[in-house]
Amino acid sequence: MSGVEWVVDARGCDPAALADLGRLQRLFARLFDDLHLHPVRDTVWHQFAGAGGITGMCLLAESHLTCHTFPEYGSLCLNLFCCRPRPDWPFVTFLKHEFAAAEVEVRQLERAYDHEPARSQLSQLRSAGTVSVV
Amino acid sequence: MSGVEWVVDARGCDPAALADLGRLQRLFARLFDDLHLHPVRDTVWHQFAGAGGITGMCLLAESHLTCHTFPEYGSLCLNLFCCRPRPDWPFVTFLKHEFAAAEVEVRQLERAYDHEPARSQLSQLRSAGTVSVV
Repeated sequence: MSGVEWVVDARGCDPAALADLGRLQRLFARLFDDLHLHPVRDTVWHQFAGAGGITGMCLLAESHLTCHTFPEYGSLCLNLFCCRPRPDWPFVTFLKHEFAAAEVEVRQLERAYDHEPARSQLSQLRSAGTVSVV
Repeated sequence: MSGVEWVVDARGCDPAALADLGRLQRLFARLFDDLHLHPVRDTVWHQFAGAGGITGMCLLAESHLTCHTFPEYGSLCLNLFCCRPRPDWPFVTFLKHEFAAAEVEVRQLERAYDHEPARSQLSQLRSAGTVSVV
């Protein structure tokens, strides 16, 4: 068993958009809707003094969604961890459109739950024909 | 400029330890102390019905700390995102000791803030001797 985490870094964004709380809230709302995510608690939002960077964190039934913006560097860093499968989402297109990102890096990490040696052992047993999967 | 994110997956843990809120809270407290992290809000904790898996999320001045446990799979998944440098922390030793983890995978990701083409261009200029760093 494993979950998936999207690690998304958008750079060269419009600083004003990165300090716009409503825009960040719309990003979260789109992700909730499109990916059928279920918030367990209200999203916690915090806007930092100075450049006005914003952090948003939402505890989901499917794990979590977090976002940090750094207007002073023109960047946005997002994590979406889903312990249950979800389709890909158009992070690149959306972040270029809504935040004028010049580049968007999307990494997809496997977050494995089960014990690797147990998995390997099971896999070896399957290969050897000792375990059959029906 | 870049931050760092530790993505830590512990597997083969003791299920009872993974459903023990106090133990998770001590893990967060140790990380706050040892790495001089500054929570901006109280950590949000949620324990799920059924297997008793726990989610903890803390909004930090340095970005965020999250943790999910899955007693039904014997696993714990932790993220620590620091937008400012921090030394390594003994995740493997601590999680083996406190949660009886059989294996701990620690990945360290760079979260870059500045615009890559701008960095590359600057790097090329530096290589060419056009830009000097004092």
